[in-house]
Amino acid sequence: MRLRVVTNNRGRVYGLGIGPGDPDLMTVRAHKILQAARNIAYFRKTGRPGQARTIAANLIPRNVAEIPLEYPITTEIPFSDPRYSAVLSEFYEECTKTIINVIGRNEDVIVLCEGDPFFYGSFIHLYERLKSSSVIEVVPSVTGMSAAWTATGRPISWGNDVLRVLVGTLPEDVLTRHLQNDDAIVIMKIGRNFQKVCRALEMSGRYQSAWLIENASMIDQRVQQLRDVTNSVAPYFSIIIVHGQGRRY
Amino acid sequence: MRLRVVTNNRGRVYGLGIGPGDPDLMTVRAHKILQAARNIAYFRKTGRPGQARTIAANLIPRNVAEIPLEYPITTEIPFSDPRYSAVLSEFYEECTKTIINVIGRNEDVIVLCEGDPFFYGSFIHLYERLKSSSVIEVVPSVTGMSAAWTATGRPISWGNDVLRVLVGTLPEDVLTRHLQNDDAIVIMKIGRNFQKVCRALEMSGRYQSAWLIENASMIDQRVQQLRDVTNSVAPYFSIIIVHGQGRRY
Repeated sequence: MRLRVVTNNRGRVYGLGIGPGDPDLMTVRAHKILQAARNIAYFRKTGRPGQARTIAANLIPRNVAEIPLEYPITTEIPFSDPRYSAVLSEFYEECTKTIINVIGRNEDVIVLCEGDPFFYGSFIHLYERLKSSSVIEVVPSVTGMSAAWTATGRPISWGNDVLRVLVGTLPEDVLTRHLQNDDAIVIMKIGRNFQKVCRALEMSGRYQSAWLIENASMIDQRVQQLRDVTNSVAPYFSIIIVHGQGRRY
Repeated sequence: MRLRVVTNNRGRVYGLGIGPGDPDLMTVRAHKILQAARNIAYFRKTGRPGQARTIAANLIPRNVAEIPLEYPITTEIPFSDPRYSAVLSEFYEECTKTIINVIGRNEDVIVLCEGDPFFYGSFIHLYERLKSSSVIEVVPSVTGMSAAWTATGRPISWGNDVLRVLVGTLPEDVLTRHLQNDDAIVIMKIGRNFQKVCRALEMSGRYQSAWLIENASMIDQRVQQLRDVTNSVAPYFSIIIVHGQGRRY
């Protein structure tokens, strides 16, 4: 973490990693910060409770002020369309203003982040806008991918293994190229990219050794070899794993 | 985690991830398991306290039985020599026997693991030997790399970034090949591979944007751009980071 002290009468922003899902996989530090919270912010889809809010639910103090940051609806705009970027950019600008308002009253704001904030976290878009003017503390956390490979009961990487982390939003040919080797693989952001990711795994010969982990470490966790999966869509919090081979002693 | 119930009168083995260094970055679950411990085991070099033991020091209950697992001295044997593998294999066999003795008395053994046990952890070598005969619970944890990128105050990966995790023990040409792209990079196991890793970073044009993080999240944490580093060796718990570029909104 890096602290930038700017003025004395402004609050601090926390990018608080709260782990992959099981509240017991939260760090002691996250617990402490959460229990002293006065303002918590979290991303969510409209009409949904929000994954981070759900993970932290039993640890949020009474009388805390909640600041839900509701994603704009983008499902009808293609990911590659410049309007997609514009809509999200405007959203993150608004979120940043909301947070600056609260810290301007000399109160801290805790942004709940599922997984590790600096590892593919939405918090990054706030951090980049706040960092030059605000005191920010980022608290690392157990990632969803750690929970996912632990759930498979097999190590992800050992010895000289290379681990590649990919996102399902990559183009199919890029995914296929990255998969064409014997590296250990993690694929995040599956959701509506599930069929594309499966094709890339088949093209690269990794499909038979891939696992799908849904909702890792949560109550509804589900672990399957990918070839046994019958559904054609996967939950947003799905991760695909191909284990490394390791150096064995 | 996967549990295999074998017999009723044998203890359980825990592969307990205790985080990157700061005891406050331990999970709540690790705290609970540690505080109920009767037998703890940990790897260490001969004559050293052991990193995992040091991280957990203030949380180990009195009257716990400690089982140090002391690495054989291998510094004079080249990594590629078959004798290196043979010596380590024998060592892990001995460790496994030691643990089986304790669980045979119907007592649990907690193996302390720095970082996440299934992510390049020495525990994997015990796990592979114990898994068919023992009840094992693996507890994931904050990795050293999460602590390292958090310490740089910049996100490691966002948007469509690919993240590659490499180990310094890889041959120089393999390292160079993996670095020749614009992926986010983490390099672990630096130690005596430091000069080789630096050459590979220079060859691939990534040297100027690389960071060296020593002892991430520990009291003696040190964060530098690699080009500012003057020492020619790096501590064992060093990690090199090259940040991703992200998709910005």
